[in-house]
Amino acid sequence: MTRSASNVTPLSDDQKKALVAKALLLDRYAVSSTTASGSGHPSTATSLGHVVAVLLYQQMRWLPSDPASLANDRLVLSEGHAVPIVYPALGDLGVPAGPSHKPLSLADMADLRKLESILDGHPNPAIGMPFFDCATGSLGQGASVGAGLALAARVDGSDRRIYVIIGDGESREGQIWEAVDFIAEQKLTNVTLIFNANAQGQSEPVSTQQSADTLAAKLTAYGLDPVIIDGHDVGEIYDALNSVADDGKPVAIVAKTVKGWGVEPLLHGNWHGKPLPADKLAEGEASIAAELAKTGIADAAALKITPPAPGNAPARASRQIQIGDPNFEELFASISHPTAAGVIAGVKKGKLATRRAYGAALVALGRACVDVVALDGDVKNSTFAEWFAAEMPDRYFECRIAEQNMVSTAAGLAAAGKIPFLSTFGKFLARATDQMELAIMSAANIKICGSHSGTTIGADGPSQMSLPDVAYFRSFGHRNSPMGTTVTMAHEKVAAADAACPVLVPCDGVSTWKLVEIAANHDGACYVRTMRPDTPLHYDPTESFELGGHKIVRKGKDVVLAANGYMVFEMLDVAKMLAEKGIDAAVVDCYCLPMDATGVLELAAATGGLIVSAE
Amino acid sequence: MTRSASNVTPLSDDQKKALVAKALLLDRYAVSSTTASGSGHPSTATSLGHVVAVLLYQQMRWLPSDPASLANDRLVLSEGHAVPIVYPALGDLGVPAGPSHKPLSLADMADLRKLESILDGHPNPAIGMPFFDCATGSLGQGASVGAGLALAARVDGSDRRIYVIIGDGESREGQIWEAVDFIAEQKLTNVTLIFNANAQGQSEPVSTQQSADTLAAKLTAYGLDPVIIDGHDVGEIYDALNSVADDGKPVAIVAKTVKGWGVEPLLHGNWHGKPLPADKLAEGEASIAAELAKTGIADAAALKITPPAPGNAPARASRQIQIGDPNFEELFASISHPTAAGVIAGVKKGKLATRRAYGAALVALGRACVDVVALDGDVKNSTFAEWFAAEMPDRYFECRIAEQNMVSTAAGLAAAGKIPFLSTFGKFLARATDQMELAIMSAANIKICGSHSGTTIGADGPSQMSLPDVAYFRSFGHRNSPMGTTVTMAHEKVAAADAACPVLVPCDGVSTWKLVEIAANHDGACYVRTMRPDTPLHYDPTESFELGGHKIVRKGKDVVLAANGYMVFEMLDVAKMLAEKGIDAAVVDCYCLPMDATGVLELAAATGGLIVSAE
Repeated sequence: MTRSASNVTPLSDDQKKALVAKALLLDRYAVSSTTASGSGHPSTATSLGHVVAVLLYQQMRWLPSDPASLANDRLVLSEGHAVPIVYPALGDLGVPAGPSHKPLSLADMADLRKLESILDGHPNPAIGMPFFDCATGSLGQGASVGAGLALAARVDGSDRRIYVIIGDGESREGQIWEAVDFIAEQKLTNVTLIFNANAQGQSEPVSTQQSADTLAAKLTAYGLDPVIIDGHDVGEIYDALNSVADDGKPVAIVAKTVKGWGVEPLLHGNWHGKPLPADKLAEGEASIAAELAKTGIADAAALKITPPAPGNAPARASRQIQIGDPNFEELFASISHPTAAGVIAGVKKGKLATRRAYGAALVALGRACVDVVALDGDVKNSTFAEWFAAEMPDRYFECRIAEQNMVSTAAGLAAAGKIPFLSTFGKFLARATDQMELAIMSAANIKICGSHSGTTIGADGPSQMSLPDVAYFRSFGHRNSPMGTTVTMAHEKVAAADAACPVLVPCDGVSTWKLVEIAANHDGACYVRTMRPDTPLHYDPTESFELGGHKIVRKGKDVVLAANGYMVFEMLDVAKMLAEKGIDAAVVDCYCLPMDATGVLELAAATGGLIVSAE
Repeated sequence: MTRSASNVTPLSDDQKKALVAKALLLDRYAVSSTTASGSGHPSTATSLGHVVAVLLYQQMRWLPSDPASLANDRLVLSEGHAVPIVYPALGDLGVPAGPSHKPLSLADMADLRKLESILDGHPNPAIGMPFFDCATGSLGQGASVGAGLALAARVDGSDRRIYVIIGDGESREGQIWEAVDFIAEQKLTNVTLIFNANAQGQSEPVSTQQSADTLAAKLTAYGLDPVIIDGHDVGEIYDALNSVADDGKPVAIVAKTVKGWGVEPLLHGNWHGKPLPADKLAEGEASIAAELAKTGIADAAALKITPPAPGNAPARASRQIQIGDPNFEELFASISHPTAAGVIAGVKKGKLATRRAYGAALVALGRACVDVVALDGDVKNSTFAEWFAAEMPDRYFECRIAEQNMVSTAAGLAAAGKIPFLSTFGKFLARATDQMELAIMSAANIKICGSHSGTTIGADGPSQMSLPDVAYFRSFGHRNSPMGTTVTMAHEKVAAADAACPVLVPCDGVSTWKLVEIAANHDGACYVRTMRPDTPLHYDPTESFELGGHKIVRKGKDVVLAANGYMVFEMLDVAKMLAEKGIDAAVVDCYCLPMDATGVLELAAATGGLIVSAE
């Protein structure tokens, strides 16, 4: 740990006292709000009072009046259950929130966790709390979100900084270390990971594997430059936040803290996830008041501290991206990567794998819009994200074999206004289920591509096969539902544009190109499912597609065969066989789920019936 | 790295030559079998020839005639795509496999990856390859499986050892480091992690974050004792496998290897996942033959080497576990943990949360059967696994906040004949989706408990809510399907006992107790869904339950209301309200999914209709 303090002026004694007073203000409301709600985590929250006070009042350059601004430094609270220590700062600073953008006040804290309140039990931007970039609370995801925000700042040439607070118990999650690997490899010095080492988990003390010393040793081995500090000393916190490693490594902070700091009754026994009972609140508040008295400041709320102002917000390109009709021969000829030219022969023969069409569309999107970025997990030569990577290396992020970090990093990029396309085998996305859920819950504008889907990867065996992926993505409900995760019944109609995550399953290269363009222009998560083998280039390049749409690819009057992906061609074969037996079958390409099925059902009613094919 | 060689005799020159010859035999078939199949990973496989030869012929104490024996040392091939290097050893040693238990031969290698072959593209015990303990291939899971096997050996007092081979690219997966944390914390010196540092990923060289030196630095920081060796030097491999750390730390091996070692055409360019084309096979085989010539051994297949014999297999308790009818007052009085006594007052009033009933049944099962073990992810005071942990600490494994490692560790325990119950919040299980899929695919006998399920955890917000969990577990199909992951259509009948993972959703304490007993006795994965709040003790303790069963909890002639979990009580309330309006509603508790719905459908047909309630 070789480091030098930056040339930032150290805090004066008055500044220190003021920040301690603000920390105690946050502590006080963290305790009273959880008591009022009858649930929550005051002991975790109060372990972070000083850290959060230094960050929000002194360190972070941000506009409390515009918490969503891309100019702002950002805070990711990975241990989301500590959020009752952040809300009071937002209330004290009058940060607007909720559908009405009404400034929060300290009085609002009494509504924490109430059904109608926007002060949710865990951070979530989708419920109208734009100070946060992504839902957290399912642990271990914040460092990756922070990495995504930091990547976006780097691409933008913005000097804004990202701070991530991570619990010590939480740092047992492997994803934290995927993120640390990624931050080290990408040399993301604009993100600071702050480990809250309070040494107490939910059910027992944190393992020695997550002690402050072991965390620091791990961070060093991973290539970061950690410093261990007293997390209740505002001067040490400020100095650490402003220190710079001599060798240009990203700095990390391991803050030794105390659960329930300053709140006498919380210091005895295991209070994790338990609010102070009402009859102990006065005792808790009295001990906080006694700490406040030491600062000589009578009323911490009356004290006005304005956080430093940020620089300018980076510009964002138009959200309407047009890549026109595909001319695959021309496009592949324009890609200099060695694997592109080899595809042309197949295209001339009318064949193109949907995964290659995905790669082609991604290049076209990247050329059309500087905000399109791509991520892949060491299978870019299979998903064909490699063409984008070769041509636009500054906007491609190789995430290696670490899908969880990839998904949450993409969510961070999206929160910063980028349009991230992430790709891996459909099966390996299962690795990041929880991360996709939190991203979709956050209404993150991420585009997920699962390649090698379905049984066409048969020879590799079931460990490589994504079969339940469509069912999984369809289990998300309406995007405007606060949860996004309500199970949608098969008969329930959700328009594709309103779905929390529309599923796009193209059967050929043309429809892949068009659906990837649709995904880019849709404001929200989409899943694009591609396949390994070549399929015929079925559609004319001028054919149009839409969210929720379908195509009748064969007319028929006796029966309707509905399919998507490669099964469309299987059903066309079936229709031919049926024709030989005198049965005239229609075939429908259900390329988008959910779909407006009215037309198909009318067709089915007019014919003998409907057969849905699935793998 | 302070270590001493064990007192094992070093390899003689003749032994070394014989092992090199066997390594080249494995290499030869790894190359020819992947060429024959037209797919597979010969370059990865041949980076492991020497390591696998030393392990299977010299180091591991095992019975090739009985590959499933619990007496055997075990090999977990975490980088499952390297399996073409292991199959030839099984063929050479005549290891029985498949439904017929026919000994494999080297000639069988020509069938690799064929549809009807048991030589699957990735390891999988469920297809009749009992040499392996769990399906691998979705990367990063093997170290955890190995930890589970090692825990089982420790509980058994068995000296058998577990070896895990992990790719360097694969070691970017966070789960690997969750496993390393767990192995270090549990001081599992009977498991040896072998990192295959061949420095090449699929799409590009492995990151320097996963270089041999960085891997060793990380392992040291985590508390293991790593040694870096030449992975193509059989003497170094053998010495490392038999070395013991002076300070009692688990030893890990970082083996520097070369992808395509000894196979001239594989040494140039990126051959990941690509077999040698048929016209290059002769060149490849010639270079292997040239290496073999250096040993002076003409025919490596003719050379007979018998692996060392194992000790005795540990005994296993009867698989039929009976815990009788619940007497909750008596049971809670018998649990010495401080939180148990407090439950009795509620029981006297006829109330008990299903999560507490789960904890009670787990204690009863643990008392009844020594092979029942439990795992939890730092929420044991919420799931009530804490009662088992307190009473049977040698059979309880605290997995901390690392759900992926917990699930795969449970799969390892199950493979070793234990009956593991793992618990966490239902939402946090989403973190381990991929791990649950691989375990279920392996037909692992694991019992998964998701607590705090559904909307009853509302105040905590969506990041803590498991809503899609039932749909997810129901997306697995028939247990005898090789994949286990075929999506089951709603109308398709799969008997619960044949489902890949039956879902048990009890509404009260009695049914929880009975269903947990059923889960313990069912040979295969089960999901038990428990809830946070108290619910009435509805059923009589003598009531009987069965897999696939349901209960008519209220008779009625006008309409049928079907529900499970707490919704049963909501539906009983609805029935009362309907009764006031003159409508006589029946209520059915569908406590098991899939269920034999015949009775319910008959009832529905006899009444006015069926209403299914869901959250």
